[in-house]
Amino acid sequence: MNLTLIGIGTGNPEHLTLQAIRAINAQDLILIPHKGEGKADLAELRRAICDEVLTNPQTQITGFDLPVRDEATANYRQRVDDWHDAIAQCWQQAIAAHPKAEKVALLVWGDPSLYDSTLRIASRLSPVPQIEVIAGITSLQALTAAHAIPINEIGAPFVVTTGRRLRDEGWPQGIDTLAIMLDGTCAFQSLPPEGVHIWWGGYVGMKEQILCSGPLTEVSDQIIKMRAAARAEHGWIMDIYILRKAGV
Amino acid sequence: MNLTLIGIGTGNPEHLTLQAIRAINAQDLILIPHKGEGKADLAELRRAICDEVLTNPQTQITGFDLPVRDEATANYRQRVDDWHDAIAQCWQQAIAAHPKAEKVALLVWGDPSLYDSTLRIASRLSPVPQIEVIAGITSLQALTAAHAIPINEIGAPFVVTTGRRLRDEGWPQGIDTLAIMLDGTCAFQSLPPEGVHIWWGGYVGMKEQILCSGPLTEVSDQIIKMRAAARAEHGWIMDIYILRKAGV
Ligand SMILES: C[S@@+](CC[C@H](N)C(=O)[O-])C[C@H]1O[C@@H](n2cnc3c(N)ncnc32)[C@H](O)[C@@H]1O
Ligand SMILES: C[S@@+](CC[C@H](N)C(=O)[O-])C[C@H]1O[C@@H](n2cnc3c(N)ncnc32)[C@H](O)[C@@H]1O
Repeated sequence: MNLTLIGIGTGNPEHLTLQAIRAINAQDLILIPHKGEGKADLAELRRAICDEVLTNPQTQITGFDLPVRDEATANYRQRVDDWHDAIAQCWQQAIAAHPKAEKVALLVWGDPSLYDSTLRIASRLSPVPQIEVIAGITSLQALTAAHAIPINEIGAPFVVTTGRRLRDEGWPQGIDTLAIMLDGTCAFQSLPPEGVHIWWGGYVGMKEQILCSGPLTEVSDQIIKMRAAARAEHGWIMDIYILRKAGV
Repeated sequence: MNLTLIGIGTGNPEHLTLQAIRAINAQDLILIPHKGEGKADLAELRRAICDEVLTNPQTQITGFDLPVRDEATANYRQRVDDWHDAIAQCWQQAIAAHPKAEKVALLVWGDPSLYDSTLRIASRLSPVPQIEVIAGITSLQALTAAHAIPINEIGAPFVVTTGRRLRDEGWPQGIDTLAIMLDGTCAFQSLPPEGVHIWWGGYVGMKEQILCSGPLTEVSDQIIKMRAAARAEHGWIMDIYILRKAGV
């Protein structure tokens, strides 16, 4: 079996590449998770994308239920491992129900390489399929595009990390630019804000997109309020930001 | 004037997003640099992309000569600054020759946010135009897709940096994954290779794509040779790689 992981971008159907559209149309079967965790809009989006670009009548779409994480498992890594095992089993069942499907695909949010577990789950299938990856626009790129900024200073490095790491470990040594993802708690609050500029975005690339940028001393509170209000309104939020220190 | 910077991906015309195609067709004028520095294939690619997706008869395409860097200027930052000034002047002239053009675009290799100066050059135009950015697939994504790997371990950070920095400053503290770009000298040679895995790619996403991966102790020499041979064959090379340390 061939398994193709197709990056679809971060919510704007026009993030799709020609390569992704071609790949969607080359499949026998596309697996789409049913909505989970209240993010109904996101589940719908995958179906909408297929409706829009799928022209191959041979391609079947099948839904599957995403298992939930067992929050009773205390160890974080174990909990994630168990969950990935359970997801792999769901895929396996959905695929087994279509024995003639030789080419199977999953639509991956953003790019399959960036803070995404689809590749790790795929490696649990047995037999391990031949895997192909199609790159997609990431939320980090949707953020820099929305703010019309480069991510790095000329020839300078940057770190991509998580809200949890920023909170627990502080600003990494010797680097002036950070991109923060997977942050449920506005971890930028844990930093001394002096001399730090932030470019923040929620729902980047989507029609709900909201942006805010400025010196952290001035906009920190504003972002915390915008985020809370947007989250209350939509029932969910995904946000991402870049932090830059002047002259590390 | 509106200036749109359109990310086109890294050499595969199918890296184009629907958003990029729409943006190309929304322009009055598209500026394309004439070939420079022997990378004729790359100059041609931008024209080929326009030929393929441009359906708006109103959109004009105009070439301009890229100025060369003045290698006599000793200071690196000054040399780059002067060069960016000179490029901005070239754009300015090309735009002035089309006084009716309200919407002007440039096609940017990969994504305009990543080690690219187009945004910095655009800010030198006077009057400063309204700038819009369309994200494009980066060489880093083309690399991870080609190797079918995630860039980061679960919840772990990574650094994106240059060959020069890796050579001069060594492996950044406390980070197990590095992505290295802009490396003319296989800077991975400067590292103690034990315990480091490399995923390397040249011309990623292009038909010339070459890949190599493995423990640095085993594949380092092989990559140096592949790179030299490919460069000799094509007259140029662009390469990129990910390094991962087991258990930092
Ligand atoms: C599990 S990761 C998936 C990232 C995805 N693979 C990508 O390429 O962007 C989810 C995190 O990505 C970021 N994210 C994804 N989509 C986003 C969006 N539309 N707006 C803002 N942040 C987003 C948020 O930081 C979120 O916590
Ligand atoms: C000036 S930077 C431009 C990066 C570009 N904006 C992007 O998004 O990938 C040029 C560097 O990108 C990398 N690069 C760009 N295209 C590449 C390709 N097709 N294959 C391998 N590396 C590439 C190389 O490291 C090269 O030195």
